[in-house]
Amino acid sequence: MQLPSSLLENAVNEFSRLPGIGKKTALRLVLHLLKQETEEVQLFSDTIATMRRNIKFCQRCHNVSDGDICAICANSQRNRQQVCVVENLRDVIAIESTQQFNGTYHVLGGIISPLDGVGPDQLNIETLVQRIAREDVTELIFALNPNIQGDTTIYYIQKKIQQYPCKITTIARGIAFGGELEYADEMTLGRSLANRLPVESYISNR
Amino acid sequence: MQLPSSLLENAVNEFSRLPGIGKKTALRLVLHLLKQETEEVQLFSDTIATMRRNIKFCQRCHNVSDGDICAICANSQRNRQQVCVVENLRDVIAIESTQQFNGTYHVLGGIISPLDGVGPDQLNIETLVQRIAREDVTELIFALNPNIQGDTTIYYIQKKIQQYPCKITTIARGIAFGGELEYADEMTLGRSLANRLPVESYISNR
Repeated sequence: MQLPSSLLENAVNEFSRLPGIGKKTALRLVLHLLKQETEEVQLFSDTIATMRRNIKFCQRCHNVSDGDICAICANSQRNRQQVCVVENLRDVIAIESTQQFNGTYHVLGGIISPLDGVGPDQLNIETLVQRIAREDVTELIFALNPNIQGDTTIYYIQKKIQQYPCKITTIARGIAFGGELEYADEMTLGRSLANRLPVESYISNR
Repeated sequence: MQLPSSLLENAVNEFSRLPGIGKKTALRLVLHLLKQETEEVQLFSDTIATMRRNIKFCQRCHNVSDGDICAICANSQRNRQQVCVVENLRDVIAIESTQQFNGTYHVLGGIISPLDGVGPDQLNIETLVQRIAREDVTELIFALNPNIQGDTTIYYIQKKIQQYPCKITTIARGIAFGGELEYADEMTLGRSLANRLPVESYISNR
């Protein structure tokens, strides 16, 4: 694709470095911005740069935050004895939108994945161990994606905190609502059979 | 979607104003930028703002350009007697990528569409008429999308320049390569029958 202007080309190249944005989509976005007022595009550009420069991470749970402590950790209504361990911010947003969890979070910033070169030292595990040692955490709930890396991470953290009297749980694996048994993989169906629930608790949780 | 930071929320809102980008995609893009170095995000942001502020439009054909005259108009190898009239920059890029056209362009910046409130005065039609009056334009090739608005625009411009001895053509409508006759609409198939070509010219154009 031959573009008639190097300014245009630079802008298209920058956009096409974003995930899921190819050259054609990038051009469409740039041509859209070209039609906007200069001030509006300046605002777009400033908002992005300001966000990156000024955003902070909560010193307690590593969630993104406007201040030193995030809104969830600062909220005295939340149960600080329950800590839900997640991979990233997107998982926090997903769990928050269920409105089913009133505890606090700990964002690992990734999961242990030797193939991708991610070891425990690159994750926020040390601060989690410190939280459990210093604060009165009674339950650690792992909400990691169900795969080898997730299980490895759970295993590693469990080993690190075994000396503390803290209950460790993980979110339930099973057949999703609206899912069909015949299309479920053997692993999910097998686990969901092994971890079957009394009907009363199933009904009361609906 | 409840976001934990107003900085993040502003950035997501800015991204989701772009065409085809919803809230979820915007969040994915913002979280990607959050993982990049501050300098890289600053570069992204500066490139976009600089593009909008400094980009120029060719004074002759209204194509986007780094200078007062675009690279195509400035190129002495291009045939300035042929002017291809297009709606926007994207069409210029599409035609250029065929490498079949060696003339120059005139970018209207839209087409006449009373329903969308676009009249002839908002388009670059006056400068086109001036070009035909002053320059030695022998052929005007309309490459507009085949619809009512495109046809109206062709008709309007044709009326405006009828006093000048300039040949007026339009790109061929017909069955696309790889298209199938049975799925073509009646209008396209009808026109393509009415405008049938001698087989020799068809073969030599392949």
